[in-house]
Amino acid sequence: MKINVMTDILEANDRIATANSEAFKENGNLVLNLISSPGSGKTSLLEKTGDALKGKLRLGVIAGDIETMRDSERLQKHKIPAVQLTTGSACHLDANMVASALPHVDLKKTDVLVIENVGNLVCPAEFKVGEDHKIVILSVTEGDEKPLKYPLVFRESSLLLINKIDLLKYTNFNLKEAKANARRVHPDLEIIDVSCVTGEGMDEWIAWLNRQYQKKFGTKPRA
Amino acid sequence: MKINVMTDILEANDRIATANSEAFKENGNLVLNLISSPGSGKTSLLEKTGDALKGKLRLGVIAGDIETMRDSERLQKHKIPAVQLTTGSACHLDANMVASALPHVDLKKTDVLVIENVGNLVCPAEFKVGEDHKIVILSVTEGDEKPLKYPLVFRESSLLLINKIDLLKYTNFNLKEAKANARRVHPDLEIIDVSCVTGEGMDEWIAWLNRQYQKKFGTKPRA
Repeated sequence: MKINVMTDILEANDRIATANSEAFKENGNLVLNLISSPGSGKTSLLEKTGDALKGKLRLGVIAGDIETMRDSERLQKHKIPAVQLTTGSACHLDANMVASALPHVDLKKTDVLVIENVGNLVCPAEFKVGEDHKIVILSVTEGDEKPLKYPLVFRESSLLLINKIDLLKYTNFNLKEAKANARRVHPDLEIIDVSCVTGEGMDEWIAWLNRQYQKKFGTKPRA
Repeated sequence: MKINVMTDILEANDRIATANSEAFKENGNLVLNLISSPGSGKTSLLEKTGDALKGKLRLGVIAGDIETMRDSERLQKHKIPAVQLTTGSACHLDANMVASALPHVDLKKTDVLVIENVGNLVCPAEFKVGEDHKIVILSVTEGDEKPLKYPLVFRESSLLLINKIDLLKYTNFNLKEAKANARRVHPDLEIIDVSCVTGEGMDEWIAWLNRQYQKKFGTKPRA
């Protein structure tokens, strides 16, 4: 008998992820698992997204961090309902952690639920939490070769947001090369350039969210 | 009987780390475990460090990445002997992976051996590889609150390099606050601001390396 600890962990995780996913569908939630390195701008993007969606789609966030309540506090200042999950030492969110947060989220009053994962470009990509899509953020200060060095998250994601595009001119990041690298590991990957400082790409990102919501629930977009 | 998988893994790791450490001491190697998020500038720092140490301390690098040979290829262009460890999916280097690379490093001809860990601010902090010091790099584009959100690596490190200081003026990174946050989790942490673009802080960093080499081997610094 061979015990494969990792396979067992992932199978148990997937069962809980499926249950989460069923709850999300029943409650009308489009669910996005947002993954990036530390400091790529996940929380800033969500602040801007909450402002842009106001009066249209209702955004809710489950924010994962090893320690501190900072991200949920930042979001609450933008009147975005946010639950903080502090993992202690875990380097990613798993389906069970997300399940434990759900009683604290008003799913019936949420259209788009974003799971803001722990800042880590590696481990979160392995664990489904019940999401419709993974979204990966890469900021231009991180380097254009990252999709080749950390391929799994780029392969698993439906959308790549290239963030901090306002800093492009101060770096040696080659935007064309970054996109080519991302499509080497995931040929159909959608890509949007964004800046939370200048607002560049925000309309395109909001339109993407609306399309996904409409695809899942078939209703007229509200944004 | 309670089986604590994580404790067992760490104990086995520590035994191999101790053996690595003994080999390093015998061969006259100061060994540094370099940890940061993806894209904080580990490889760029090593390129500059190799250039600065030329003819003085002899630098060698073991570069960890999930995939690609890019980092070791970049270093070899700077005539820095570099061995690439590709981890496949592992999110950190452990002592056994480093041990497996040692036959490919000419330890007798190396004064400073840098283990460039996988880009990940979380998992590498948990695994000793036989190093004298962990060094953490935080780039100013990542945000000044990171020491509070990812405390372990800041607690375990002897030195924090705040990198990309040339980009400070384009960000909302508060340098004073970043240092205060780092010292909240590790009061004695040494901190040097550096830029691989302008060269700021490089002299101080090279002096730090020399001091550590001298402390370990008691010889007159060669750089």
